[in-house]
Amino acid sequence: MPPIQPDTIEIRLPEWINDFLRAFPEHVHSLHDRMTLVVEAARVNASRGTGGPFAAAVFEAESGKLISLGVNLVTSAGLSILHAEILALSLAQKKTGGYDMGRQDMPVYELVTSTEPCAMCFGAILWSGVRRLVIGARSADAERIGFDEGPKRRNWKSEIAARGIEVICDVGRKGAAKVLQDYGKSGGKIYNSLHGKR
Amino acid sequence: MPPIQPDTIEIRLPEWINDFLRAFPEHVHSLHDRMTLVVEAARVNASRGTGGPFAAAVFEAESGKLISLGVNLVTSAGLSILHAEILALSLAQKKTGGYDMGRQDMPVYELVTSTEPCAMCFGAILWSGVRRLVIGARSADAERIGFDEGPKRRNWKSEIAARGIEVICDVGRKGAAKVLQDYGKSGGKIYNSLHGKR
Repeated sequence: MPPIQPDTIEIRLPEWINDFLRAFPEHVHSLHDRMTLVVEAARVNASRGTGGPFAAAVFEAESGKLISLGVNLVTSAGLSILHAEILALSLAQKKTGGYDMGRQDMPVYELVTSTEPCAMCFGAILWSGVRRLVIGARSADAERIGFDEGPKRRNWKSEIAARGIEVICDVGRKGAAKVLQDYGKSGGKIYNSLHGKR
Repeated sequence: MPPIQPDTIEIRLPEWINDFLRAFPEHVHSLHDRMTLVVEAARVNASRGTGGPFAAAVFEAESGKLISLGVNLVTSAGLSILHAEILALSLAQKKTGGYDMGRQDMPVYELVTSTEPCAMCFGAILWSGVRRLVIGARSADAERIGFDEGPKRRNWKSEIAARGIEVICDVGRKGAAKVLQDYGKSGGKIYNSLHGKR
């Protein structure tokens, strides 16, 4: 009798990612340069057709050591959970040894994301253990080209902060938003679910 | 030069799941019986130590055909995103052929979850394409034993409904909550991140 469902889910990262990473130093010191790396990954992800124009990375906040880089793989992997933040956080947890990157014996980890997290990723960040969130483009920049970011509470930034996670917004916003605008102009796929149901 | 990060993330389901599923019919007709299956999976997941006391499954809403069963694997897989709903939705998307289970040419799919979705899973449900959400225990039942469900908007049910997803609550709540209470009493791991930071 065949198994009723698969025993594993395998998420394969695009082949270009490791080559891309080799072009950057192991440590990236300024927040601006960290965001530049992430926004460039978002641009490459869109232009290579491996997913939407979004990327995110986990760094050691103090040293700037790059821990992981995730990109949006929703369309190429066929899984709606595969936002860039989800990939970056999961890869980082694999690397740092567990589901809580906020343990007292660990360095402070930060998530740098090219666009403000959607409703799902907002929750994923809370559970990850990262202690800093650095954001490029705003939700409005993604919504302008048709992406749905979902409902978050008006005070979501202070809710994140109240849980010990520092939030820094608008880092390199202009460049981050440009990647979204270019994607919109090029006719890139806007992959919201439930088309026409709202 | 070794790759800077892994090329794949592999999520392995517990071995007991397919044996567990074989004890149930291919179609489960009443909502009550669907919830019973899910709550029993939550109980087994906790007692076997493969994760927290949570499970979720995707069914074809009309026929009751079981598409996927997910359980919480946060502690065993070391990934904070691996809530039962995330697994069930991802397995179902692998099986039904893509990131949007809400396409017009598809049957209506529903997610049956043993406990009210947390802030992250709330967003994941919006993006999945399921058109019905069936909930057993309430967030308060999970919070009573120490789990953090995260902030959702007060009107989250109507926000889900406004996106074409029907919400049905308190289905078999008593049995679902009992699994949580038993887990609490047995000293099961409460794995919230950022211990002591809030």
